[in-house]
This record gives sequence, structure tokens and C-alpha cells, in this order.
Amino acid sequence: MGLGPGKSAWRTPEAEELIARSTDLVGYGRYLDMLGPLSAGKALHPFALGEEEKRVRVALNLAKEGRAVSVVCSGDPGIYAMASLVYEMIERGEDPGWERLHVQVSPGVSAMQAAAALAGAPLGNDFCAISLSDLLTPWEVIEKRVRAASEGDFTIAFYNPASNRRRTQLLRAKEILLRHRLPGTPVILARNLGREGERVEVLRLGDLSVENIDMLTLVIVGSSQTRPTSGGVYTPRGYSGKTQAPAAPAETDPVQPDPKEVNSP
Amino acid sequence: MGLGPGKSAWRTPEAEELIARSTDLVGYGRYLDMLGPLSAGKALHPFALGEEEKRVRVALNLAKEGRAVSVVCSGDPGIYAMASLVYEMIERGEDPGWERLHVQVSPGVSAMQAAAALAGAPLGNDFCAISLSDLLTPWEVIEKRVRAASEGDFTIAFYNPASNRRRTQLLRAKEILLRHRLPGTPVILARNLGREGERVEVLRLGDLSVENIDMLTLVIVGSSQTRPTSGGVYTPRGYSGKTQAPAAPAETDPVQPDPKEVNSP
Repeated sequence: MGLGPGKSAWRTPEAEELIARSTDLVGYGRYLDMLGPLSAGKALHPFALGEEEKRVRVALNLAKEGRAVSVVCSGDPGIYAMASLVYEMIERGEDPGWERLHVQVSPGVSAMQAAAALAGAPLGNDFCAISLSDLLTPWEVIEKRVRAASEGDFTIAFYNPASNRRRTQLLRAKEILLRHRLPGTPVILARNLGREGERVEVLRLGDLSVENIDMLTLVIVGSSQTRPTSGGVYTPRGYSGKTQAPAAPAETDPVQPDPKEVNSP
Repeated sequence: MGLGPGKSAWRTPEAEELIARSTDLVGYGRYLDMLGPLSAGKALHPFALGEEEKRVRVALNLAKEGRAVSVVCSGDPGIYAMASLVYEMIERGEDPGWERLHVQVSPGVSAMQAAAALAGAPLGNDFCAISLSDLLTPWEVIEKRVRAASEGDFTIAFYNPASNRRRTQLLRAKEILLRHRLPGTPVILARNLGREGERVEVLRLGDLSVENIDMLTLVIVGSSQTRPTSGGVYTPRGYSGKTQAPAAPAETDPVQPDPKEVNSP
């Protein structure tokens, strides 16, 4: 389950209900701290960073004993978080008993969504999410993705843009992006989302440097259409040439209307 | 503001608070209906599909009169929804007074996240979101994006995959994807998320057809790494070659630990 980014106002009722129904909470120590009174009376199993497999092993073993266990993540557990590792470790077969466990994933607001909302609406058209951490994914694969996202003119949310040790990846990504995007393309840096010290900054792609960027920073790079305005940075729903087209058919279907088809004129 | 996908258990407290503080609620009629007792005592301004600009105009004019207005979306208002249109219409300058309004975007759980959670963790590594509606975006741009996402090996969430009139786009996308992905690649179809009739189906890319797909369906196509297992469909955090590497350095930084750096071994 995911707590959303930082503050409880961005946390789903389902997440809180899952915690209430749990006997055991497993997670990075800081996230368990974020729970405050919600964790009262629960067995807490805090872990350090870098102990992800250990965390999942403990959680699966507790569940096998019949405990109700929440693996607590921030953001959305399905986006650069613990959900996929739970499935991966079950599949690896270290303990065949794990396969019989009931696993439920509960979605949450991810960091890129909070960052986007605070900045305006930069994810208003097609976008992608890329982690720049090359610990488990070879850099060539990451670079291929950055190139593809750049060529495809996606707005890009970069997770794990840099750490104290990894300082080159973001600059390499910038280099690739500048082949397809103007130096004036808006970039959003977001830190401490929903927490004390929350900070959202808008700058130009050409001015992006790795200074002041760490693992707590989320970086969103606009597409060719993303625009900074006095009110906020946004990506229009369509391309302006198309927006003006007077002959665009109204895609309103009385039989099965689509709540998401907001591209209608 | 966004109600999340369907049920109130996926709706943030911030969304409910914004509604409580509003004098006026503007939105697609069905979304306003979803609010139930929350909308009591509010001035309701329901609109049909295809009336997005009209909706925003009414909302901005009400706000200009000093009313507290919520433009109600499902999912996340910043993802294929109304937030970017609000900024766009303010910027177009139809009424210069709109520029002085205070606009706040409140993030929500988007349909792809609910679909992913119900199916497992298919968005567990890099992914992108593409709308297949060519009402406002030329098809060539969309096709270029599908090609880029395909080459970049992203898991892809397709919004607006088809409507009663648009039946060819998803099949064209499938054709492009099959150049880079195996016919056995898992595909998730999700309908009525968080609502009555909620249905999540997993099939093979080679078997994807446009039958039974409409504007209410969300389609997720896995990357080359996405795997169906007995417990759920998931995309591992890394590439297995890299996962096994014993020499991978532990990226644990005692100074600025990164809650999202789950790629650590």
C-alpha cells in the first residue's frame, strides 16, 4: 500500500483502512514514522534503505504465519516502489508457501502527480516516467528510453534523477533531450512534496544542472508543447493546429460516453 | 480536482475538502452524480460530454464573480482531464480577468494506477501514458509516440483506446508494438474501475482485438519484461542480468536517503 506523497490529505481512505486492518506494518523507517497515531497497536518492522528484499521476505513470512501485513510505501506502491518486488520474490520461489498468500495492491498518488499539480498541468498530454537509477537497469537501456521519450515528444517525469554518488545521468539525459527540445523547454524540480520544506521550482531545460538535485528531487521535463504561463506550467490537450480545426467531429457517444474523452471539442 | 477512479475509497481527503469548501461544482453530469451527499447545498452545473470548453468558461466566470468553484474530474485532473484546459483557456485571453483568478490543482489516483493495482504491478518499471484519441492530436503524432514507446520498451497505458466511431487506432498500435514485442506480451483490459461491473482481464498482445473495447476501457500493454504469474501481472524493477550482479553497489546514502530508490539491492 502507498501513503501518497507526504501529507495525509493526499492519502486514500483505502490506504488508511488497510493499515487499520493490519497486525504488522513493514517498511522504510521514515514511512512508518509518517503514519503517526495510525500505527498505534501495530507490530512495526522498520527497515533501512537498501533492505528492500529483506523487507519483503519478512512481510511474506509474517503473512505466511497468518498475520495481516502491510508493506508500506510512499506514493503509489506500483510506481518505482515495493509492489513489483513482492511479486518478483514470490515468483523466484525461495519459499513455495508464499505463492498461496493473498496479495492486494492499493494504488496511491505518485510523486509526479503531486509535483505536476503544484506546478500546473504539465502531464496534460502524453507523458512517461523514467528512473535514472542504473543500479538494477543497465544504463544503455535507460539511455535508450530517454532517447525514445525524447523522439516521441513525451513530457518526462524523472524519478531518482541523481544521488550523492550518481551525478552524471541527469546531465546525459539533458544532452539527449536538447537534441529534440529547445533550451527554453520548461523543467519542474520538486522536493519534499507534501512535507515541510516543500519546494517547486520552474526553470529552462538549458539551465538544468545537477546542483541542488538529489534523490529526494523529482524532475519533470516538458514536451515541445509544454508552456510556462503566469498561472502555471501546462501541456495543452492537443496540438494547436488541430485545436483550431472547425471540422473536428464531436466524439460524443450517447450509448457509451467516455468520461476521459476530454479531447472532444 | 479529481475524484479518483470510481469509488470513494480511492478519493483523497483533499478532494473532499475542496468540494466541501466550494459554492459551485462544475463537471460532467455523471461525475457530479458520483458525489452523492457531498454535493448537498452546492450549486451544481452539470454538462454533457463534448462541452469541455463551455464547462471551463462557466467555471472561470463563476470564480470571477467571487464564487469558490470546483471543476470536478474523475481520476487525476492533470492526466487527460480538465486542468490543462483551464490553463489553456486562461492563456487564450478570452477574458483578461480570468488571469487574476487563483487556480489550484489537486492530484488524484488515475485510472491506469487503479487498473495496474488490480492486475498486480505492471507499472513497476518505466512506463508511459498515450491517448489514442486523434480529435485534437494528429494521428501522425500519436503514431510517432506509439513507435517511440515501443522502441523504448516502456509499459504503455492507453487512454481512450477506441470509441464507437474510432475503431482502427488500437489495432494500428498493436501492429507497431508487435514489431518490438512478442505476441505473448501481457495486456490488461480494465473497465468500470471502482464501480459496479468492475472488470480486469489479462490477455496476450497477439490476441488483442478491438471487440469489447470502448471509451470506458483502459488498456495496459506490458514491456518485454512484464510477466504474468499466478498472483498477478508485474514488471520487475530491473533487468534480471543486472538483478543478479553481485557487485552492484548499495546506493544507500546516510546523508540524503532516497525513499524512492527502491532499485537498491
